[in-house]
Amino acid sequence: MTGRVAITPILLCGGSGTRLWPLSRRSYPKQFSALMGEESLFQASVRRVWGKEFARPVVVTGAEFRFIVTQQMAEVGADPAAVILEPSARNTGPAVLAAVMQVAQNDPEAIVLIAPSDHVVRDVQAFHAALTVAVGAAAEGRIVTFGITPDRAETGYGYLEVEGGVEAGVAAPLRRFVEKPDRARAEAMLAEGRFLWNAGIFMARADVLLAAFERHAPGLVGPVRAALEGAQPDLGFLRLAAEPWGEAEEISIDYAVMERAERLSVVPFDGGWSDLGGWETVWREMGPDGQGVAASGAVHAIDCRDTLLRSEAEGQVLIGLGLERMIAVAMPDAVLVAPMDRAQDLRLAVAALKASGARQATEFPKDHRPWGWFESLVLADRFQVKRIHVHPGASLSLQSHHHRAEHWIVVQGTARVTVDAEVRLVSENQSVYIPLGARHRLENPGKLPMVLIEVQTGGYLGEDDIIRYEDGYGRG
Amino acid sequence: MTGRVAITPILLCGGSGTRLWPLSRRSYPKQFSALMGEESLFQASVRRVWGKEFARPVVVTGAEFRFIVTQQMAEVGADPAAVILEPSARNTGPAVLAAVMQVAQNDPEAIVLIAPSDHVVRDVQAFHAALTVAVGAAAEGRIVTFGITPDRAETGYGYLEVEGGVEAGVAAPLRRFVEKPDRARAEAMLAEGRFLWNAGIFMARADVLLAAFERHAPGLVGPVRAALEGAQPDLGFLRLAAEPWGEAEEISIDYAVMERAERLSVVPFDGGWSDLGGWETVWREMGPDGQGVAASGAVHAIDCRDTLLRSEAEGQVLIGLGLERMIAVAMPDAVLVAPMDRAQDLRLAVAALKASGARQATEFPKDHRPWGWFESLVLADRFQVKRIHVHPGASLSLQSHHHRAEHWIVVQGTARVTVDAEVRLVSENQSVYIPLGARHRLENPGKLPMVLIEVQTGGYLGEDDIIRYEDGYGRG
Repeated sequence: MTGRVAITPILLCGGSGTRLWPLSRRSYPKQFSALMGEESLFQASVRRVWGKEFARPVVVTGAEFRFIVTQQMAEVGADPAAVILEPSARNTGPAVLAAVMQVAQNDPEAIVLIAPSDHVVRDVQAFHAALTVAVGAAAEGRIVTFGITPDRAETGYGYLEVEGGVEAGVAAPLRRFVEKPDRARAEAMLAEGRFLWNAGIFMARADVLLAAFERHAPGLVGPVRAALEGAQPDLGFLRLAAEPWGEAEEISIDYAVMERAERLSVVPFDGGWSDLGGWETVWREMGPDGQGVAASGAVHAIDCRDTLLRSEAEGQVLIGLGLERMIAVAMPDAVLVAPMDRAQDLRLAVAALKASGARQATEFPKDHRPWGWFESLVLADRFQVKRIHVHPGASLSLQSHHHRAEHWIVVQGTARVTVDAEVRLVSENQSVYIPLGARHRLENPGKLPMVLIEVQTGGYLGEDDIIRYEDGYGRG
Repeated sequence: MTGRVAITPILLCGGSGTRLWPLSRRSYPKQFSALMGEESLFQASVRRVWGKEFARPVVVTGAEFRFIVTQQMAEVGADPAAVILEPSARNTGPAVLAAVMQVAQNDPEAIVLIAPSDHVVRDVQAFHAALTVAVGAAAEGRIVTFGITPDRAETGYGYLEVEGGVEAGVAAPLRRFVEKPDRARAEAMLAEGRFLWNAGIFMARADVLLAAFERHAPGLVGPVRAALEGAQPDLGFLRLAAEPWGEAEEISIDYAVMERAERLSVVPFDGGWSDLGGWETVWREMGPDGQGVAASGAVHAIDCRDTLLRSEAEGQVLIGLGLERMIAVAMPDAVLVAPMDRAQDLRLAVAALKASGARQATEFPKDHRPWGWFESLVLADRFQVKRIHVHPGASLSLQSHHHRAEHWIVVQGTARVTVDAEVRLVSENQSVYIPLGARHRLENPGKLPMVLIEVQTGGYLGEDDIIRYEDGYGRG
């Protein structure tokens, strides 16, 4: 793209859907997972809007994801202009409004690009070309939507009806939004040719959007403005004030503003977009082979057709034998097996797990913390073994436990360990013992990740047996 | 049973089928697994023939299973008369002959009961009643087979045709053996009523069986007798001489003798027998619920019908959603998903794994050793974490490693640890460091199992990096 005007990206990543359970869970939703390739969907979304044509992005996310956002951005060498933290999930309407207000404070005429961070765009050049087309229309005060050329009669997406006809590289007037259609309507729209999928990506001037919010969703403006004015800067995050925020209506940007606004344009975009809204879509995007088999991880597909097999469990091989239109996903703590056509009903599975009190319903096996992550390798009656991964330069809180002692064995990198009054460096293949009750702290003073194996022994091994004396991340 | 005559059981447990992979593997076949309930199929088989009516059993197994056999027998409080070790698997003909020769040495007229140890019998009383009926016929010099009243037109079993008709509690003459039939033939036999399933269980006097072998399989007699005469007592096992043993034809007892012998009787037996010959049979025997769902372990079945779900992987929940006639089995190192009707083709899956060099094809995740077992919790590039379980009184070899150091943390019980010249007791929540190259030994001097977590670090972590200086189990 030519880029005379810098675009300010607003990345929405507060979502926490269960349609890709067990890979996506409330504690670690799909945008942070490496669903396609090495980097996460969020990282790919960041990199798509990083470069000289773009201002630094504004990220809107839930407070529980803040360290994942900063860590994942750092990993791809990107730096946010702001990370706005929602005290509670209120859908995309209030989230977009808060971000647009934040941008408008510095530059009311800034052109913002509002995009989800859990979608896939295979052709980034085509995406940038579409943005270039859109910038012209946005600068003139139009609200630009992006329409994906449909390649099938999809009933899972909303559609955009284009005034006149679809022409590549041209921003056409939008006639109307079309709700998710039934099969017959989807086929009719595919045949007619002037209907595009609504990708949920928008571009406009900040002031134009604010005016649209004031006109079409005036009830949102007061609470969101108050939440932003009362926001607390918190270790580089902007934590919105909870009370006014809670008064904002829970509504999507589409319903709140877009479907009522005037002067909307559509820029067609044909770059391999997908919302990865369910396992069937993931299967399609993974690029199935001649038999329709999409596989990742340690997997063998024998006599399978139109089947998705994923193994994310280290050391566990997944065998599909004679499967047709099936999904099998293995994670270290959960395995899902379902026909592809039942993937919509995953909420039933998650509800059943929740009802039984299983942590797998909402918690990810890797527990991400500001300093890194840990996972339980084995949890028995009176002992637990964990793998603990600490980012370079990171530090756990100074803490103690009432009910457990801990043995730490460093297996990669170097740790600085405090036990009561003593501080020492512990390198690979060295161990430390933390007696029950001792005040201790674990740090990674090095430039590389540090990994240690923790063996806990004691009568109670819950995560809540912790007293924190000092914490660099503002936790109690 | 009344039992004026003691029966000498001969338990065959050398089998290593893959039809129940991933639960049954070459290194730990199904007879040693707790497929139904708490105890293994072998343990249930032992307990069925343990008591005052029986002499101590003779067990025939592969050398690689010898410590599993003694450990599992000790766990149910049983004690073998002999454990005969086959240098190689030659099918059941040579195995039965060796055991019968061994029994006949002491008592040529002993009545032997030959039974597999990987079958299920739900009604042990009915089994004993059938044995009582059989003893009379066997004492008179007949070879008695046991015929199961069929409850379906099964094509997976051979049949026994009874002369005249089937009458409960009566040993009737056997007309002939019928090979596994096709569907139409199976249905016809089910309707006719004088056909029973061949359970592969036989009873006869030892001298009668020896005469039958000499007459119908004379080629087996020489090699098997030589193998028995050259057998080496080895830590309480009777290890057959490999060279003559290898000359014995690989043939089943049915083909070698039974189908050719005269004076055969059938005792009908209606006690919930199954050979657990495949996952569909296991599903049926597990007692499916009203929807036909059989489940074990941490499993949720949602909208499933006629489906088997088993999770044997600690901490991993298995979710079946909308499945029909499917099998899903999760083990710590392997997950199988297949339609029930494809379960026969499991050998394809095992072959694919073998071709890819995956240890899961043949090795069980818990590695059973004479002293207990271990499993790998995580295997990374330069470290590995294992859980090690040592039986009371057991001892590992005095050993050293060239490429790894080890940290041991005792999490249950008490260990006696030797490191070079030093010997000390290590109790729960204590740790020991084994430097690279140090001569070390691990023992459990206590009365309870001892469990420790081993963290290995080093550039090479293979099981073959071991030098053994002393070993209580005759290993080099």
